[in-house]
Amino acid sequence: MLTLGCAYYPEDWDETMIEKDAERMRSVGMKVVRIGEFAWSHMERSEGVYTFEWLHKVFQIFQKNDLYIILGTPTAAAPPWLVRKHPEILHVDFFGQRAYPGVRQYTCCTSPVYRRYAARIVERMVSEFHSYSNLFAWQIDNELEINQVNCCCPACKSGFREYLKRKYKTLEAVNQAWKTTFWSSEYSDWEEIEIGDMDRNLNPSLVLESQRYRNLEYLAYIENQASIIRKGCPGLPIVTNNCGDPVDRHALFQRLSAAGGDLYVNPAHRLPTIAFWMDLLRGFRPGTLPWLLECSTTPWEPVKNLLELLMVHYHARGADLQLYFHWRSHSGGFEKSHGSFVGFCGTERPGLASFRKAAKKLLPVLKEFGDLPPPECRAGILYDFDAQYNYSQGFRSRSAEYGSKLRAFHEHLFAGGINSDLVPPDADFRKYALLLIPAHPHVSQKFADRLKNYVQEGGVVLLGAESGLFDDESNYISTSGPGHLQDLFGLEIRDYIRFRKSDFPNGCITFSGHFGGKTVRSECDCWIASIHPLDAEVLCTFDSGLYQGQPACTLHRFGKGVALYCGAAASDLKFERELIHYAASLAGLPLLKIPSETEIVTRGPLVFLINYGTAGSRFDLPLKGKVILGSGFEDGRVDLSPRKYCVIRREEV
Amino acid sequence: MLTLGCAYYPEDWDETMIEKDAERMRSVGMKVVRIGEFAWSHMERSEGVYTFEWLHKVFQIFQKNDLYIILGTPTAAAPPWLVRKHPEILHVDFFGQRAYPGVRQYTCCTSPVYRRYAARIVERMVSEFHSYSNLFAWQIDNELEINQVNCCCPACKSGFREYLKRKYKTLEAVNQAWKTTFWSSEYSDWEEIEIGDMDRNLNPSLVLESQRYRNLEYLAYIENQASIIRKGCPGLPIVTNNCGDPVDRHALFQRLSAAGGDLYVNPAHRLPTIAFWMDLLRGFRPGTLPWLLECSTTPWEPVKNLLELLMVHYHARGADLQLYFHWRSHSGGFEKSHGSFVGFCGTERPGLASFRKAAKKLLPVLKEFGDLPPPECRAGILYDFDAQYNYSQGFRSRSAEYGSKLRAFHEHLFAGGINSDLVPPDADFRKYALLLIPAHPHVSQKFADRLKNYVQEGGVVLLGAESGLFDDESNYISTSGPGHLQDLFGLEIRDYIRFRKSDFPNGCITFSGHFGGKTVRSECDCWIASIHPLDAEVLCTFDSGLYQGQPACTLHRFGKGVALYCGAAASDLKFERELIHYAASLAGLPLLKIPSETEIVTRGPLVFLINYGTAGSRFDLPLKGKVILGSGFEDGRVDLSPRKYCVIRREEV
Amino acid sequence: MLTLGCAYYPEDWDETMIEKDAERMRSVGMKVVRIGEFAWSHMERSEGVYTFEWLHKVFQIFQKNDLYIILGTPTAAAPPWLVRKHPEILHVDFFGQRAYPGVRQYTCCTSPVYRRYAARIVERMVSEFHSYSNLFAWQIDNELEINQVNCCCPACKSGFREYLKRKYKTLEAVNQAWKTTFWSSEYSDWEEIEIGDMDRNLNPSLVLESQRYRNLEYLAYIENQASIIRKGCPGLPIVTNNCGDPVDRHALFQRLSAAGGDLYVNPAHRLPTIAFWMDLLRGFRPGTLPWLLECSTTPWEPVKNLLELLMVHYHARGADLQLYFHWRSHSGGFEKSHGSFVGFCGTERPGLASFRKAAKKLLPVLKEFGDLPPPECRAGILYDFDAQYNYSQGFRSRSAEYGSKLRAFHEHLFAGGINSDLVPPDADFRKYALLLIPAHPHVSQKFADRLKNYVQEGGVVLLGAESGLFDDESNYISTSGPGHLQDLFGLEIRDYIRFRKSDFPNGCITFSGHFGGKTVRSECDCWIASIHPLDAEVLCTFDSGLYQGQPACTLHRFGKGVALYCGAAASDLKFERELIHYAASLAGLPLLKIPSETEIVTRGPLVFLINYGTAGSRFDLPLKGKVILGSGFEDGRVDLSPRKYCVIRREEV
Repeated sequence: MLTLGCAYYPEDWDETMIEKDAERMRSVGMKVVRIGEFAWSHMERSEGVYTFEWLHKVFQIFQKNDLYIILGTPTAAAPPWLVRKHPEILHVDFFGQRAYPGVRQYTCCTSPVYRRYAARIVERMVSEFHSYSNLFAWQIDNELEINQVNCCCPACKSGFREYLKRKYKTLEAVNQAWKTTFWSSEYSDWEEIEIGDMDRNLNPSLVLESQRYRNLEYLAYIENQASIIRKGCPGLPIVTNNCGDPVDRHALFQRLSAAGGDLYVNPAHRLPTIAFWMDLLRGFRPGTLPWLLECSTTPWEPVKNLLELLMVHYHARGADLQLYFHWRSHSGGFEKSHGSFVGFCGTERPGLASFRKAAKKLLPVLKEFGDLPPPECRAGILYDFDAQYNYSQGFRSRSAEYGSKLRAFHEHLFAGGINSDLVPPDADFRKYALLLIPAHPHVSQKFADRLKNYVQEGGVVLLGAESGLFDDESNYISTSGPGHLQDLFGLEIRDYIRFRKSDFPNGCITFSGHFGGKTVRSECDCWIASIHPLDAEVLCTFDSGLYQGQPACTLHRFGKGVALYCGAAASDLKFERELIHYAASLAGLPLLKIPSETEIVTRGPLVFLINYGTAGSRFDLPLKGKVILGSGFEDGRVDLSPRKYCVIRREEV
Repeated sequence: MLTLGCAYYPEDWDETMIEKDAERMRSVGMKVVRIGEFAWSHMERSEGVYTFEWLHKVFQIFQKNDLYIILGTPTAAAPPWLVRKHPEILHVDFFGQRAYPGVRQYTCCTSPVYRRYAARIVERMVSEFHSYSNLFAWQIDNELEINQVNCCCPACKSGFREYLKRKYKTLEAVNQAWKTTFWSSEYSDWEEIEIGDMDRNLNPSLVLESQRYRNLEYLAYIENQASIIRKGCPGLPIVTNNCGDPVDRHALFQRLSAAGGDLYVNPAHRLPTIAFWMDLLRGFRPGTLPWLLECSTTPWEPVKNLLELLMVHYHARGADLQLYFHWRSHSGGFEKSHGSFVGFCGTERPGLASFRKAAKKLLPVLKEFGDLPPPECRAGILYDFDAQYNYSQGFRSRSAEYGSKLRAFHEHLFAGGINSDLVPPDADFRKYALLLIPAHPHVSQKFADRLKNYVQEGGVVLLGAESGLFDDESNYISTSGPGHLQDLFGLEIRDYIRFRKSDFPNGCITFSGHFGGKTVRSECDCWIASIHPLDAEVLCTFDSGLYQGQPACTLHRFGKGVALYCGAAASDLKFERELIHYAASLAGLPLLKIPSETEIVTRGPLVFLINYGTAGSRFDLPLKGKVILGSGFEDGRVDLSPRKYCVIRREEV
Repeated sequence: MLTLGCAYYPEDWDETMIEKDAERMRSVGMKVVRIGEFAWSHMERSEGVYTFEWLHKVFQIFQKNDLYIILGTPTAAAPPWLVRKHPEILHVDFFGQRAYPGVRQYTCCTSPVYRRYAARIVERMVSEFHSYSNLFAWQIDNELEINQVNCCCPACKSGFREYLKRKYKTLEAVNQAWKTTFWSSEYSDWEEIEIGDMDRNLNPSLVLESQRYRNLEYLAYIENQASIIRKGCPGLPIVTNNCGDPVDRHALFQRLSAAGGDLYVNPAHRLPTIAFWMDLLRGFRPGTLPWLLECSTTPWEPVKNLLELLMVHYHARGADLQLYFHWRSHSGGFEKSHGSFVGFCGTERPGLASFRKAAKKLLPVLKEFGDLPPPECRAGILYDFDAQYNYSQGFRSRSAEYGSKLRAFHEHLFAGGINSDLVPPDADFRKYALLLIPAHPHVSQKFADRLKNYVQEGGVVLLGAESGLFDDESNYISTSGPGHLQDLFGLEIRDYIRFRKSDFPNGCITFSGHFGGKTVRSECDCWIASIHPLDAEVLCTFDSGLYQGQPACTLHRFGKGVALYCGAAASDLKFERELIHYAASLAGLPLLKIPSETEIVTRGPLVFLINYGTAGSRFDLPLKGKVILGSGFEDGRVDLSPRKYCVIRREEV
C-alpha cells in the first residue's frame, strides 16, 4: 500500500520547530519519517556520555502526529572524539594514505575497533527506543561504500590473509588458483600477499578475491548491527540503502527485510533509465517490494516539479514505501543547498505543493486496493555481482561495461513494452518466458544445470557474447567454451578477438543474416567469438574479416525451449534490439508498439500507464478496465498528455 | 609621475657586467630597479655566514647611475641549508605530503621557525643597507601564495585551534556556529578540530574559518618583516606583489605603503580584461596609486612589441611606477627563457627598443604635469575577499565564479565607456554615482546601514542574485532575504532554485520585461530567486517554470536613490549589460558608444585615449583640449589608428 | 639470415604441453624461443631454494626439436619473498611513495641489495644452463624502465650525491655549473642536494644531471648481470629489449651484442611510423642488425592478419631475428588476453596460420642469400639521448617534442623514397651524403669539428632551429650561437622568440623565399631565431613581425659541402619537406615519386618493395632484377596490389 514520508534531521532543530514540522508532515499525507542516520555525535557527545532525551522527544512528538519512524544507526559518520581516540579506524587507500575525517564514510568497515563502537551505540539505541510503538523499522548505516575507495588498512590486509587461509587452506592452492607463475608472483608465505585494488594492473584473480573478501566484510559489518537489532526489536524490519560496489546486494538484502535504495532523478534521465533503476532495486530481493528510502523533491526544477508523476512511476514499479529527501533544509553544513520540501527560511518549496497534491489524490484511491503484488514481469535479466567482478578483470571501466550491457538489454525489452526483472543466478527462472544473460564469464556446473533445465521445460534464453570462457578465479577455462553449456547452445567457442572499431577508420567488419522474417546486419565493435556449431542453427554469419563465413549468431532448440547465442559484443543497438525482440517472440511475449518514454506496468488488478515524454502518447492497448486515477484511456485506446499518467482497474482480474 | 624601471638579478653577474647594465638602464630612461628577492643563499651562504659585499657594490654602482633600488626580502625561496636544518618549515598539503624543496614558495608562512629566520635575514639586510640614499623602498617576499596549496602542517593545525579559541571562546560556540550536528561533527575537544582545505567536501564553515585563519597568518607573516623594516628604515615605502588566495589584499595593502602587483599581458588578453586587472590592483588600496612591480617586456611578440601602448595604458589606470620583468636573461635555472630586455648573449631584445623609444617620448612630456590624481571613476564595484570565501562554500570553482561576476560587471561598464573602481565594503561609496554588487552572500547590519545611507542620499545600487542569504559563517540566515536589506530593495527573497540550463536540452526558462524604454528578455541559467515584492516595482517577470509570473528583476526608489535587484544569476550577458547600463542611466552616468578595445581614462588634466584594437577607432567625444602625446583627436572627434594612443590636456581643468 | 621464433612461458605448463608446443613451433618454422624473463619465483621459490629442473627439461625438449633458447634473466619482476624481506628495494617516487608490489618493474635498479640478489640468480642460472648447446643468447631483464617513474629512493639520493662529487669535485663547481643563484639554490653542503625528477619545475641542470645519473645506474645495473654472463658463457650474445627513458640506448647497446627491441603494430600506425621505429632500433647499434625480441601476432585483427607483410618489412629494415609475442595465451594473470598464436583452449589463432604460411614461403627463398648487409641508407639523422635530455629542460613534453622532430624529418625523407639511419653523434657521418640534425641544443667543440670536417669533405648538413644555444648543463652559452658552428653556417644567432601561433587568432607571422627553383612560404609557430648572416646566403626571410626582413633560412657553402640552417622551429610541414628534399638534391640523392605507404629498401643483392596501403601502388623504378618473392615488378615498372610485397634480386650486384 502506498505509504509516503521523508528524511528528517531533528538534531538540527528545537522542539517547537519539530512539533510544527511533524504536524505539517502529517497534514500533507506523510506516514513514515527516517531520522538519526547522521546523529551519532548528537547522541554520544563524548565517549559513553549519551544524550538521548532529544530523540525521545522526537519519538513522542511523532507519535502524537501518527508518524512512524525509521531509525538510522549513525555509523556512516563517526563522531570526532572517536576518530581522534582511534585513528586506526580510518579508511586507508592503496598507497597507504589514511582518509581525512570531516566528511562521511571515512571509516573502515573491517576495523574490529570500529565495529565494537558501532555495536555499542546500536545497543544503546535499541535499549532506549525499542518500546516505542511508532518505531517502524531500522536503517543500518547509510549509502555504504558510496563515497569510498577500496580500503587497504592493516585490518583489511590481515583479514584478507585470514580469508584466503580459510578459502584455500594452502599457499600452493592460492598459487595454482591465481596462476601466480605469471610475472613471478608465486607466494612462499601468507604474509607476502597484499590485498588488491581495482585499476592497479594487478593479477585479476587477486583483485577478484579482494573484492569478494571486502563484500564479506561489509556483510559482516551489517550483520554486526543487525543481530543486535533483531534481538532487541524482534520482528521489526531492518534495511539499508543505496550500497555501492563491492557489496553483493543480493546477498546483502537477503539478510535484511527489504531492498532499500535511493533514487535521485534529474532532467537528464530518460524513463527507461529510471525504470531500470527501479527494476534493479526490486531485483535485489526477488519477489518482495523495495523501499525507496530517499528520492528527490526537485525532479525537473526549475521548469517543472514532476514529483507526482514519478511517485506513480515508483509505485508502479513496486515502491510502496517512498521517503523523500528531505524535509527541511539544513541551515549549515555541506548539504545545506540540497533539495528539500521546506526552504531555508521555512517557506514551502515547489516540491511540497506537488507532494501534498499527489498524496491527497493518490492515497485514498489506492487504499481501496490494499497491498498490491509486485509488478508483472514475464522476462528476466540475469544480474550477478560475482559475475560482474569476474567480468571486470580488475578494472572499474569493465565493471561499468557489464552494467551497461544490463541497461541496454533492459531497455530493448522496455522499448517493446516488456517489463523485466533483474534477477540473481539462484532465482527461479521458470516464472519467466524469456531469460536474457548479457554476460556471464564463469558458468558453473550448477548454474548450467539450472539453465538447461529451464530451457528443457520451455524457457527461451539469450546468452551474450563474452560468456562461459572463465573459471571462478577469472582464469580461462582450459577447454573451448561456453563452459558446461555447449550442449545447450549446440556450439563451441574456440577463440575470440578483442578490438576497437575506432582503430579502423576505413571500416571494420560486419555480420548479417535472417530471423523472424527480417534481414539483419550489424557492424562489430569490441569482441567477436570464433563459433564452431555442433548442431546449432546459424542465424547470422560474419561478412568479412578473419572469421568471415563463420557464425555470428545462433539458435538451438533444446527440449521445449530455445537457446540463442550472439557471438559479437557491442554490435549495433538496432541489431541487438531486433535479436532481443526476436527472442521475445520465440518466448511468446507480445511486443507492443508504444512511444518511447511511455510505460505500461501491471500490479495485480491495476494497470499503470505513464507518459514521461514531452509529446502526447497515443496507441492501442488491448485492455478492458476502468480509469481510477488520471485520464487518457478509453475503449482500448491510450491518449496520454505529456507528463501524464493514468491508472486503470483491469476487468479481467 | 611616470617612473620606470625593471627587475634585475645582480647575484647572477660580475661587477663589470653590473656596471654596464646599470649604465644602459639609466641611458634608456630607467630610474628604479628591484633586486634581491631571490638572493637569500647569495647573502647567507650558510647559517649566520653573511656575504653582503656584492650587494653593497650594487648599491654603489646604481647610485653612481642615479638608479634607485627596491630591495626585496628574499623569503620566497629559503636557502638549501635552512630547509635541511629545519624540514619542519616546509609546506604540508591536506594529506600530509611535505613540499619538495627546489622550486620556490615551499615554506609555510605560519612556521615560527621560518618567521624567526626570515626576521633575522631582514634585520641584517636593514642594518646593512638602511643608510643608502638610493634605497627607495622594500618589497617583502614575492608573489605570496601564488604557487602554493593550502598548508596543513602541524604549526598551521595548532595555530588554527588557537585562533578558534580566541574567536569562539567555547567549543559549544563552534558547534553552534558551524552547525556541526550535520554529519555527526560535533566537537567535544579542541584537538578534534582539523584545519580545512578547499575542494574537500568539508563543512563550508570550517573551510571559511580555515581560510580566514590562513589570511591572518599571511598578514602576520608580512608584518613580522614589515615591523623590522619600519623600525630600521622609517618612512621608506614597503610593498609586496601579486599575492594569491586566501590573502585579503585589502587588509594586506592597508598595512603597507601601496598596492603592489604584477601584470603579464599576452596576445590572448583583451583590453577590458587588462583594464580590469589594473582597476582591481588599484582598488586593493583605495585612493592611492598602485605599483606595477613586474610587467611583461614581450607583449604580443613575435608579431609586435606593444610595450609602449601598454605603458600608456598602465599609466592611465594609475600605475606611475612601472617595473618591467626583467633586465637580463638568467643564463641558467628554471626561468632562463623568460621574457627580458637583454638576451642570452647580451643583445638588445625588441622590448628594450620599444622601452627606450617610449621612455624618451613620454617622460619629458608627462613630467610637466607632475603627480596626477588617480583615474576618475564615477562607478564602484564591490569586491570583498571575505564575501568571496563565503560565496565559495569551500570550492575553488565557486570562488572563481565570484571573480567572474566581478569581471563581467566591470566589462559591462567598460563597454559603455564608464570607468569603475573595485572597492572594498568599507570604502566611501558616496564618491560613486553607481554601486554594483555582483554577489554578497552575507550582509551585515553595518554594511546594510552604510548601503541604505548611500542610496538614501542619492546613490544607485544594483544587487546581484545570490546575495543576503547567508550569515557570517556561511550558514543560511533563518529569515527571508536579503538580510537587513528588505526595506532597501522593497522585497523578500523566500526561496531559490539552483540548476543548470544544460540539463534541459529542450530549453529551460526565461524572464522578460521592460525598462529604460526597452523590451528585454533573458534565458536563465544557474540560480533564480523566489521574490516577493513588498513595495518594489517589478521590471521583469519569469515567463515560465515554477516561478512563472513572479518578479525576476525589481526597482525600488529609496530616499533620493534607487535600489535594483536581479534575482537571476548567470542570465544572458546581453540582458546583464542592458540592466547595468540602465542602472548607469538612473545614476546620471553618460553612456558612450565607443568601439570595443578602446578606452578613455581621465587623470586630472589629462585624458588618455587608447585603441588596443586591430582596426581604426572613430567616434565623437565631447571634449575640448590639446593633444600632447600621440595623435588621433581633433575638434571633439576621435580617429585612432590601430594600436595607437593619444593623450590630451583638457581645457576645462 | 631470417630467423624466426617466439616468446614462451613454459613455467605455466606441464611437460606434455611443452613437448607438444615445441613440436608445433618447429613445424611452423621457428628456430629461436625466448623464455624465462618473468620466472624468478618459479626458479627460486624462497630464498636460496632453487627449482631449475623444469627449466632443464625445457632445454632438453627444445633441443630435441632443434629449437634455440634466448634465456631471460628474471629481474624485471622480483619474487614476493624478496620484496617482503627487503622492502627497501622498491621504487620510490618523487614524493616518497614506495611502489606497490604485484605488477612488474617495481624495484629500483640502483639498490645495491637488489643488484646483489639479481647477481645471485643470474650466477645460478649461468652455472645451471651455460653448457646447453641450444642456449643461443641471454636477454637481461625486460623492457627496462618502461612502466616506471623516476626513482627517488634513499639509494638513488645518496648515489646521486656520490655521482656529483665524482663529476664536479667541489660544491662551488656545482653551484657554478647549475647557476644556483637563481631562486636561492646555492648549496653549502652536499647533503642539501636532492635528486630531481621531470615535470617538477626544478632547475633544468639538476634534472639533466639526475637523468644522466639514472642512465649510468641503468647501465651499471645491466653490466652487473652482463659481466656474470660474459664470464660464464663467453661468446654468447647478450641483449635486452625496449628500454625507456632515461636510458641512453646508444650507450646501452654498445655494451651488449645487438640492439634489442619490441614492436607492436596496430591499425592506427602508418608505414612511415613503423619504418621509423625499425630505423630507430637499428640505429641504437650502428652498423649491426637489430633483434626484434617481441612483435605482434595480431596486427590488423579482426579485419586481417598482416603478419607476413610486416615480417618482410621488419626483415627489409634489418631484423633478421624476429620473435613473435607470444606462443600460447596464459590461462591467468594480467596479460592473459594478450595476442598469441595459440588460444585459451589450445586452438590455432589467425596469426599462427599467417606465420606458418609466411615462414614456409620466405625462409627457403631467403636462405639462398645468406646473411644480408644492413639496409642501404645514404642519409643520416642525428639522434642523441643526451641532447634530448638537454632539450627537454626538465619536461617530458619537450622530450617528446625532440622525438617528434626526429620522426618528422625521417618521414620527409621517407616520402621522397630516401632511407635513413638514425645515428648517434659519434657515428661516422662520411657514409652519408646528407646529415639532418633536427635539434642539438649543445654543440661541443669536438662535435663541431667532426661536423665541419664532414661538410668540408663534401657532406650536406641541415641544422634545425633550436640548436647550439646551450651548454652541457643546459644553461645558455654566453656568446651568440650556434656555438662553435658560426663559421660552418656562416651566421650568428643573437636572439630568439618563443611563442605559440594559436595565441594569435588573427594570424601570426610567415617567412618566404626561393630555392631549388621553387618559391616557398611557411607560417611560423613556436620558435624563431634572430639570424645575423656572416657570409651565408639567405634562402628565406621573415615577411612580418619583429624579425621582418631578417633571414629565416640560410645556405652556406663550406669546403666541398653545404650547410643549411632553418631558424624557425615548427614551421609548416609542407615547407619542411621542401627544404629537406632540397637538401637531398644538394647532396645528390635522387628523390622518388612513390605513393605514400609504399617503401623500397635495399639489402645487398635484394630490393624489397612493400605496399602497406589499401590502394594499389604503381610507379616507375629504375631497377633491373628478378622477382624472387611476391609479384608486382616488371621491366622497371612497379604495380603492387594493396597490402602486398615483392622482393627482387638486383642485376647490378
